[in-house]
Amino acid sequence: MNRPFNFSAGPAVMPTAVLQQAAAEMLGWHGSGMGVMEMSHRGKEFGEIYAQTLSDLRELLFIPEHFKILFMQGGGLAENAIVPLNLSKGQFADFVVTGSWSQKSMQEARKYCSAHEAANTAATGHTTLPTPQTWQLSSKPAYVHLCSNETINGVEVHELPDLKALGCEAPLVIDFSSHVASRAVDWSRVGLAFGGAQKNLGPAGLTLVVVREDLLGQALPICPSAFNYKTVADNQSMYNTPPTFSIYVAGLVFQWLKLQGGIKAMEAQNIAKATLLYSAIDNSQLYFNKVATTCRSRMNVPFFLRDENLNEAFLAGARSHNLLQLKGHKSVGGMRASIYNAMPLEGVQALVAYLQDFEKTRA
Amino acid sequence: MNRPFNFSAGPAVMPTAVLQQAAAEMLGWHGSGMGVMEMSHRGKEFGEIYAQTLSDLRELLFIPEHFKILFMQGGGLAENAIVPLNLSKGQFADFVVTGSWSQKSMQEARKYCSAHEAANTAATGHTTLPTPQTWQLSSKPAYVHLCSNETINGVEVHELPDLKALGCEAPLVIDFSSHVASRAVDWSRVGLAFGGAQKNLGPAGLTLVVVREDLLGQALPICPSAFNYKTVADNQSMYNTPPTFSIYVAGLVFQWLKLQGGIKAMEAQNIAKATLLYSAIDNSQLYFNKVATTCRSRMNVPFFLRDENLNEAFLAGARSHNLLQLKGHKSVGGMRASIYNAMPLEGVQALVAYLQDFEKTRA
Repeated sequence: MNRPFNFSAGPAVMPTAVLQQAAAEMLGWHGSGMGVMEMSHRGKEFGEIYAQTLSDLRELLFIPEHFKILFMQGGGLAENAIVPLNLSKGQFADFVVTGSWSQKSMQEARKYCSAHEAANTAATGHTTLPTPQTWQLSSKPAYVHLCSNETINGVEVHELPDLKALGCEAPLVIDFSSHVASRAVDWSRVGLAFGGAQKNLGPAGLTLVVVREDLLGQALPICPSAFNYKTVADNQSMYNTPPTFSIYVAGLVFQWLKLQGGIKAMEAQNIAKATLLYSAIDNSQLYFNKVATTCRSRMNVPFFLRDENLNEAFLAGARSHNLLQLKGHKSVGGMRASIYNAMPLEGVQALVAYLQDFEKTRA
Repeated sequence: MNRPFNFSAGPAVMPTAVLQQAAAEMLGWHGSGMGVMEMSHRGKEFGEIYAQTLSDLRELLFIPEHFKILFMQGGGLAENAIVPLNLSKGQFADFVVTGSWSQKSMQEARKYCSAHEAANTAATGHTTLPTPQTWQLSSKPAYVHLCSNETINGVEVHELPDLKALGCEAPLVIDFSSHVASRAVDWSRVGLAFGGAQKNLGPAGLTLVVVREDLLGQALPICPSAFNYKTVADNQSMYNTPPTFSIYVAGLVFQWLKLQGGIKAMEAQNIAKATLLYSAIDNSQLYFNKVATTCRSRMNVPFFLRDENLNEAFLAGARSHNLLQLKGHKSVGGMRASIYNAMPLEGVQALVAYLQDFEKTRA
């Protein structure tokens, strides 16, 4: 089935095979006589789906057994409050501000604790990343927050910091919403990772939290029960009714990822896609990307036309070539191509061909 | 298409036509080249879906213009915290405890305010409803909470209380999760209504909040931004990424409800279904329902076999007759038939026929 290539930053393109399976099973799952949307979350059918999804995710992301996997709701913006409600103990937390998302995380945390800015790349327009050695960490933060891929600014942390080596015993919290499952995670350096599902995992409305067991049970008394990590963990993510259909679709994505060869194969493909696109941008006279080469995101590629008067023509031409949702985020302007796992190499090749054609016709 | 009849209390049966349309549009919505799951929530395609869903819901439930409709996440259990975070001002709130759900609401609210028990039907096993004239309201509560249909206990408030007539100026908050859209709501008596979607509106993971505008803007400073009603309202439910696919499916349900003749037609059908089922139970020697006749829920019908040793045989026989998910909630035992909007009259007729057959074979 030929579909346009959709470069939306999220909610984003899904694997065609996943959508086909979800459609085929919509009225009846595996002979149960019920669609997944119609199943009690406490019934044996959904229990099977849940268990398989959990075990596939643990296997795919190599999540160690001493981490709990939680399926929650509210996305990254809700987690900006939920993390300090659970981990800050009302004390200090440190924030590495590398773009719009970590900025929002720090601001929201101020409701619950003293949020300390350990670094901020605003001076470079968030086109660089500060090396961990330059971070100004507080003496005993409850945790250190890092957005490991900034969707809007297009910067990505390619090696997670080793806080212990920096003399900091605090757990590292990463917001990996926009690059989860695109590459391996070094769990030895992570205390908690969270991400909205709507970029690389599945439908909007599902939030993934992976948390080290020893960090459970420290929530502030004002933490809503439905967002208390220990309550969620103790109830296998079923304290409140979970977003069952979204979990099921994410599970289909996990099965699809396994068929593709798992995260290592995806990472290789993501490197190939990103290299192709950045090379085309760097080798052109018309387009440019502002991010320092070592900090560039493999998932979100913002770029600009040197002549901004061509923006509308560029986007209209793209649409006519079946290349959708390339307009940049309103806060930075220009263009953005999000090339998540579900974007095939052919999509990036088609985009590069269009970039070159458009440039030629305007030369 | 013949499907079994599914009496799950939620997530629950969906209209077959809705599931068929969702399946048909899964890979491409209205020629957009994108499935709904793949659309940016800020794009024009999803904007159309959102606007239509909102306007259909307002029309269906006759929601006055001075109420805001919010699409949120976390279900009823999250709202148990979110309501007092937004409305209690840290002061007093009154709770009418008529079953498991209102009990949980009161308990959670104690984190944020002084929760006062205005009435409690525990002495009757929550099989009755206290008349509003007997409620012990506090002098100036920030709001009065009432669960207008208790899913587990099977009691339903058939006329909302007029708090003003009771000398109380506080807004009435109703948890209408399990009977929303099954009957008309007297909005002149309501300040705020909330409900998880997974019983009568659509997929789990979507929460509907309908709130009078003058109640916005009073949230406690510790309220997470993503759950601050004013923030959600000011951002048309897109402060955080909304559960887009669930909103779309709920929108299909609203279109289906309009085709059925709207809420008045559904209410007539729900009365017919409930009357048929309660009559069969009351007229039998084997089955009984404990709820006072004036308080019985049209949506959730718990019943018991006088010989509990027959429970397993009853459930196995039901399954073999394509009657699914009839086991009662673990906290009360017995059986429960949830007969939401999407359960056709034929489903209740089939259940009644089975009830009678099973009783005959055991006589």
